[in-house]
Amino acid sequence: MRATTIHAPYDMRVEDVPEPVVRLPTDAVLRVLRACICGSDLWAYRGEAARQPGQRIGHEFLGIVEEIGSEVGTVGRGDLVVAPFMWSDGVCDYCREGLTTSCEHGGFWGSVGYDGGQGEAVRVPFADGTLVRLPKEAASDDRLLSSLLTLSDVLGTGHHAALGAGARPGATVAVVGDGAVGLCAVLAAKRLGAERIIALGRHQARTDIARRFGATDVVAERGDAALEAVRELTRGQGAHAVVEAVGTEQSMRTAVAITRDGGAIGFVGVPHGSGTGVDLGVMFDRNIALRGGVAPVRAYIPELLPDVLDGTVDASPVFDMTVDLEGVPAGYKAMDERTALKVLVTN
Amino acid sequence: MRATTIHAPYDMRVEDVPEPVVRLPTDAVLRVLRACICGSDLWAYRGEAARQPGQRIGHEFLGIVEEIGSEVGTVGRGDLVVAPFMWSDGVCDYCREGLTTSCEHGGFWGSVGYDGGQGEAVRVPFADGTLVRLPKEAASDDRLLSSLLTLSDVLGTGHHAALGAGARPGATVAVVGDGAVGLCAVLAAKRLGAERIIALGRHQARTDIARRFGATDVVAERGDAALEAVRELTRGQGAHAVVEAVGTEQSMRTAVAITRDGGAIGFVGVPHGSGTGVDLGVMFDRNIALRGGVAPVRAYIPELLPDVLDGTVDASPVFDMTVDLEGVPAGYKAMDERTALKVLVTN
Repeated sequence: MRATTIHAPYDMRVEDVPEPVVRLPTDAVLRVLRACICGSDLWAYRGEAARQPGQRIGHEFLGIVEEIGSEVGTVGRGDLVVAPFMWSDGVCDYCREGLTTSCEHGGFWGSVGYDGGQGEAVRVPFADGTLVRLPKEAASDDRLLSSLLTLSDVLGTGHHAALGAGARPGATVAVVGDGAVGLCAVLAAKRLGAERIIALGRHQARTDIARRFGATDVVAERGDAALEAVRELTRGQGAHAVVEAVGTEQSMRTAVAITRDGGAIGFVGVPHGSGTGVDLGVMFDRNIALRGGVAPVRAYIPELLPDVLDGTVDASPVFDMTVDLEGVPAGYKAMDERTALKVLVTN
Repeated sequence: MRATTIHAPYDMRVEDVPEPVVRLPTDAVLRVLRACICGSDLWAYRGEAARQPGQRIGHEFLGIVEEIGSEVGTVGRGDLVVAPFMWSDGVCDYCREGLTTSCEHGGFWGSVGYDGGQGEAVRVPFADGTLVRLPKEAASDDRLLSSLLTLSDVLGTGHHAALGAGARPGATVAVVGDGAVGLCAVLAAKRLGAERIIALGRHQARTDIARRFGATDVVAERGDAALEAVRELTRGQGAHAVVEAVGTEQSMRTAVAITRDGGAIGFVGVPHGSGTGVDLGVMFDRNIALRGGVAPVRAYIPELLPDVLDGTVDASPVFDMTVDLEGVPAGYKAMDERTALKVLVTN
């Protein structure tokens, strides 16, 4: 079969690899229908995260179950299923509590020895714990498939950010970061009933999506000017709930500054760089909480799925470029150069 | 009247100062019955927090209302009242939400131009918002008076830490720091129903109090050994709820390390030093939250008071030395040299 591999920074290839097979009785093999490229895939692409030459890549995908191991009971051949961006056993303490990202047997797609989502098929460990069944008729609905694909990461991550920030009816939510996760946080905040949603971003194509997703205000300024703009919109107090969906020192610094006293920051931007931007003195004086991290999207899928199926929640507008599998390297280039927001891969 | 003043690091004096009077219609004047010395007073004592020569000091006190301004309505002459460690107007957005430490008109006892609690009397701004009435008969009950005094700061701060950490029925709580606040966090965690409470500390006199307050386990180790010990007590997972009641980089680092995935750190140790000890990468991977800050104890007094009055909660064992007002400088010396845990001042 064909699958995307990474050989060196900026050297993505689509090449022939062995067909996946069921190795363990808890495995399934899944034929991929839709996948996509994540902002976090770009770290590997740019060489900021080390990879061994030839490693697979891609952690957002959905498809049809082709084969199952003898112990797999919740999904069967021919089922349309979505995979979250990590696999998890579904039975350990953490999985049972909904923190599937801390699963004792969890792991990442594309790690050494494992398949990635940007390929024709994937061996899925712990299929019962990992995969979630979708209505079969969705397989023939292009728009719905794209929307369902966002359950694998970006929508659930936006939801995690909004929950961490404390988005709730009546609250003012501010979202730092206009990438796909930030936009999904806007959508999630709206879904959770936020009264006012302030999107911070400078790219009009993106902030237009933010408005479509429920943002009531857009702040294009940065740094101190952004702080002033948010204060002006919030009677000088700041936002009750702030999403940090970037992961840089500067974005965290902005998040702390625009949070209202007693409020919270929901952080899902993977921290990188040496400084944290976490000013503990300010957070202490103003009782600002910090909650978040890697999103247990597997646990969120059952809650979000009905709204995705009935169209109440549709994050598919984050996909602004579509490639087929052979076009994945071009998709990376477009996201790296910011000519694409998020790239959909159709098999 | 006599009051404690600070003239330079290690130069505390008790001297004659003007009697306080009602200056604004919202003021009250309170005759102090009991006060105490806070760990945070030691920063001024040691010169780590700057003070102008002659500034007053002391922010934990209770006493009898002696005079009230024309607009004061909730307390009257002769009332026994306790003051929280900051004053607050009681009517702004933040006060109404219970975040009295962010009050738009709030302030600190002992700041320039204001009285401190370690003196014979205090002018209280915003008396209606600030003071809480206590049963008059408590004035003649020495033990109860000492217990009620802890409502002004140390008990409420421990409660804030326990809430921030997420102490709840069934949870395992770990407390980093065996000072008076850490011990009160043990007491508060017990009150909130924690199943297991692990106190980290090396001073047996203090950990004995921790056990009396409800600690089920004591870990005397530090650093990696402390981490190992906590893991051993928690099936390798760490504590659901961790209180950070010290405020150093090392203590925060320990707190992060011993928190269970998905758990929270309640931090009330005022951050000092250049490093934060907040490892955002670890907190991200393990979904560890950070909540806390300066405790809005005014808002907690009504909830805690009944338990203090009926003896269910009694934090007074944190007082292990008693001085009269003239003995306050000796009290500072004892706390600085760690021969006393917390010093009670009786007027």
